[in-house]
Amino acid sequence: MSEAPDLGQRLADFRAELQRGGLTGFIVPHADEHQSEYLPASAERLAWLTGFTGSAGTAIVLANEAAIFVDGRYTLQVGSQINEALFAPQHLIDTPPPEWLKEHTGEGDRIGYDPWLMTIAEVGRFEKACVETGAELVAIDSNPIDAVWTDRPDPPLGAISLQSDDLAGEPADAKLARLAEALDEAKADATVLGLADAVAWTFNLRGTDIAHNPVALAWAILRRDGKPTLFVDSRKLSNAVRSALAEHADIETPDALPQALAELGSAGARVLLEPRSMAAAVAAAVTDAGGTVVEGADPTALPKARKNATEIAGARRAHIRDGAAMVRFLAWLDATVGSGTVDEVLAAEKLAGFRAETALADGSELADLSFGTISGAGPDGAIVHYQVSPETNRKLEPGTLYLVDSGAQYRDGTTDLTRTVAVGEPTDEMRDRFTRVLKGMVAVATARFPAGTNGIQLDAFARRALWDAGLDYDHGTGHGVGSFLSVHEGPANLSKRGTIALEPGMVLSDEPGYYKTGAYGIRIENLVLVTNAEAIPGGDRPMLGFETLTLCPIDRRLIDPRLLTIAELDWIDDYHARLPDALGHLLDEDERTWLAAATRPLS
Amino acid sequence: MSEAPDLGQRLADFRAELQRGGLTGFIVPHADEHQSEYLPASAERLAWLTGFTGSAGTAIVLANEAAIFVDGRYTLQVGSQINEALFAPQHLIDTPPPEWLKEHTGEGDRIGYDPWLMTIAEVGRFEKACVETGAELVAIDSNPIDAVWTDRPDPPLGAISLQSDDLAGEPADAKLARLAEALDEAKADATVLGLADAVAWTFNLRGTDIAHNPVALAWAILRRDGKPTLFVDSRKLSNAVRSALAEHADIETPDALPQALAELGSAGARVLLEPRSMAAAVAAAVTDAGGTVVEGADPTALPKARKNATEIAGARRAHIRDGAAMVRFLAWLDATVGSGTVDEVLAAEKLAGFRAETALADGSELADLSFGTISGAGPDGAIVHYQVSPETNRKLEPGTLYLVDSGAQYRDGTTDLTRTVAVGEPTDEMRDRFTRVLKGMVAVATARFPAGTNGIQLDAFARRALWDAGLDYDHGTGHGVGSFLSVHEGPANLSKRGTIALEPGMVLSDEPGYYKTGAYGIRIENLVLVTNAEAIPGGDRPMLGFETLTLCPIDRRLIDPRLLTIAELDWIDDYHARLPDALGHLLDEDERTWLAAATRPLS
Repeated sequence: MSEAPDLGQRLADFRAELQRGGLTGFIVPHADEHQSEYLPASAERLAWLTGFTGSAGTAIVLANEAAIFVDGRYTLQVGSQINEALFAPQHLIDTPPPEWLKEHTGEGDRIGYDPWLMTIAEVGRFEKACVETGAELVAIDSNPIDAVWTDRPDPPLGAISLQSDDLAGEPADAKLARLAEALDEAKADATVLGLADAVAWTFNLRGTDIAHNPVALAWAILRRDGKPTLFVDSRKLSNAVRSALAEHADIETPDALPQALAELGSAGARVLLEPRSMAAAVAAAVTDAGGTVVEGADPTALPKARKNATEIAGARRAHIRDGAAMVRFLAWLDATVGSGTVDEVLAAEKLAGFRAETALADGSELADLSFGTISGAGPDGAIVHYQVSPETNRKLEPGTLYLVDSGAQYRDGTTDLTRTVAVGEPTDEMRDRFTRVLKGMVAVATARFPAGTNGIQLDAFARRALWDAGLDYDHGTGHGVGSFLSVHEGPANLSKRGTIALEPGMVLSDEPGYYKTGAYGIRIENLVLVTNAEAIPGGDRPMLGFETLTLCPIDRRLIDPRLLTIAELDWIDDYHARLPDALGHLLDEDERTWLAAATRPLS
Repeated sequence: MSEAPDLGQRLADFRAELQRGGLTGFIVPHADEHQSEYLPASAERLAWLTGFTGSAGTAIVLANEAAIFVDGRYTLQVGSQINEALFAPQHLIDTPPPEWLKEHTGEGDRIGYDPWLMTIAEVGRFEKACVETGAELVAIDSNPIDAVWTDRPDPPLGAISLQSDDLAGEPADAKLARLAEALDEAKADATVLGLADAVAWTFNLRGTDIAHNPVALAWAILRRDGKPTLFVDSRKLSNAVRSALAEHADIETPDALPQALAELGSAGARVLLEPRSMAAAVAAAVTDAGGTVVEGADPTALPKARKNATEIAGARRAHIRDGAAMVRFLAWLDATVGSGTVDEVLAAEKLAGFRAETALADGSELADLSFGTISGAGPDGAIVHYQVSPETNRKLEPGTLYLVDSGAQYRDGTTDLTRTVAVGEPTDEMRDRFTRVLKGMVAVATARFPAGTNGIQLDAFARRALWDAGLDYDHGTGHGVGSFLSVHEGPANLSKRGTIALEPGMVLSDEPGYYKTGAYGIRIENLVLVTNAEAIPGGDRPMLGFETLTLCPIDRRLIDPRLLTIAELDWIDDYHARLPDALGHLLDEDERTWLAAATRPLS
């Protein structure tokens, strides 16, 4: 066993390094160069320095004080992981880091940051704070943490594969031609792709650098005229993959990116960059060399979100396989949970096992889970982003609810679903809450809406039955989902911040919930596909709608039919009626029997 | 009868005047200095120059061409009013005036504008367009139209009265103290109020300068420290009103405003200005003298929108009186329409008469209508902002719908309601559409929602039943309403653009509709008050809700109860059940009989 690290020593070493560099402070975000959702070990600088391992946060280290900023999900965790004598914990929303910096610095201070780890927009906010105090914000190309983190892991070198046209549905050259047109429309000469899923989608490549997202850490420059450049470590490429990619792009090492940006700049290029996801270093390299940055949307974002017919067909196949694995898991759980031996860890492992097994039986393969399974028994289900650990592992006990939010990466599609099931006899309150959450889920799934409608407008449909009872949930109703790519994919979502209009082909989650702290959590999540709804007789406008992709029963024992309208009852019965035929071929006899019972009509 | 004006001569005179001033063009908006919704005759420069009398539009005159920009409401009207040989009509949204200017000007052009008639934000958009073409945008203090419009009316000198504390609910000095605190929080030394309703609310004054809005055209400077200054023409003030206002403010003539702004500027003041409603001239006067403009929300907007208990009590009284007048009108209409003598003009006049009469009977007075009555029979009901004229006046005929959208200004409150009634036997389609619109209206009226919820989130509740049938309407669901002030009041609304959180005390309209061009229009509008909803047993969060203020039956002949849920039926029956008691004392025997029949339960 390794010893607990001496965080005090690490901080002291880091401060000494800052002093050597003439800096009075440094900003340490939880980020890599690509603004990845999951970081490679080599980018876990925040965890190394502070001990905090959450998925979002920032530290600011000054000469005599330091703070760490986390959001509401992590206020408990940060307290247990960090040493508060070293880092003062702050709430990210109540005290944004630039505000804190403004209060704690002044004239003459030199605050460093790594411009590869912070976005154009983030640096803008810190710049604004520093202008007001007279401190200087200094971009430092060589991260001073790396100088003192002597055993920092090497960056990952996961093998890259190609996503074949019969899975991607559109060859890379066709995508590149569309993107060149988009650059022309945006009056830009070039754009830089930094998000790993944007690079993967554009070139139909997939990688294995980080957990859960089948992407490779790589950069690309796309040009209005001329061949793109793909910046990727050659050691990730087989000869075959390399020569296939070389048809579409010049291949360079990532170290060559700054020079290529400088060349764009010195040629006076107008370079389109998405300010909330692009490293500030990229913008600086362009402008320092005389180029112009045009801030705007990532041109791959909408085309990637609008799944083509091939991707949609793949998603449907993936959801059959994934639904069957879930049915096998739920049948096993019903048969086993009474023995008192099932805990959160066992349940999550069992589910992963069913996924792997069912994929093989379907002639496919489970490439990865699409995120760390949320396996929450009783009160743990009320923790929205609960990740089980040996310390928190809990048995599934009678009279409680069990919430499992999980998903898979298959070569033909990404899945994400949540089911909440009764363990033993549920209370009336649990059934009331569950049914209200279900009404919300169905309200979104059955919505018809005109082109131009966005996620803010639809979000409240999922909440109305809860609002009616004085209840709500503190997360969005849904996020975009990639096609064998990130399970959280922009730009559209169903939430208070969902300003992007929904378009046919987008895949989104529909996942309202209800959480009673210390008691139980409920969430019901299906993935839905935005479609052109069939024309309505007598209607005078075309409407969009949703097709439900997820195929998995909803626990009938938790539904109070008295709270449902006829239309809601019909929807649930119709949904359940589809499942035996859709999934039966991947189930054994006992599982089919279980599914038949689980999908009996309510009415 | 006056002769039709020679618009060609006017345009030629105007161009000659521009040439004398060394200008190659000029921007002529439909606006006064206060960005009033209704203009005084003296500010109708766009109508004088072009012939176009709509409520929104802009012209741009260049040396050899000119264009007029109107929105979708006015594309027909503009064609019939202007001479297309003089002004090329443009669609305001498809071709925004700054875009058009960019295409039609170049290096060396000098485009003038009146900085008192255009807002900070508007000028910013034109500046940006000119930067791209090399043209110069030039603020011209003395409007060149006024030089050639020789018989321009004088500005109005309507008498100002005070809104007593028992109607306003908060004395002016208390409001001023609150606003000084708001300036302190915004780190501003002063703010300028330009919107006439902001000035009226702040000083508890009311005016008679313009139609429908009981405001006086006036300016104010509020200071963090020190007495405010009210800039108003003394001829509008009686001695008594003047001395009452002088307790709260130094009173100056409007001509003194530029000098006062320059004094703020030269003292280095930070002046808070709302960029979308404040004249660019005000910002320029501050900055030219060395001051700083802080762009931000008008500090009166939210306090004005949150009605206090006195204003709410006044609104309830006004709605009883107004509802009784509507019932008298609807009873008269039902009794008379069969004779074939009722047309749109007669109906609107009759309704105004009932309003005046009922107000007097209630010991009150009809100060004004709150907007020009929309009285639309048959296909005219499908024109959302229809204003009847002798040319378009139409009889109410059997088998059609009649839509009447109207409101009143009483001293204790402002009303606005729409009812759609069957003339003769409605079709099944009419009843289907009416019932869907009603479901939407009720869905908003019955909503419960947490603090922080805005109008974008609620807007879709009003549309869902229409969307389900492939239908929609092209306007927002609701607007804020003032307290004996503007019937369209910011900052909150129920629409795709409703980003302001709803707060207790706000009064909003709830008015979904359905319009079948050339056939009929349906709109049902009640005003609702945002309230703290009573606590819901078992609920774990406080919720907001709506109280319906409008008291007027909804045409039962147009409701198809089979499309309603039990909850919707109950809401309608409960709503109707309140009306006889609430309104009966202002009705005669026959009207009471009519009302009893009109409010029979559906179930």
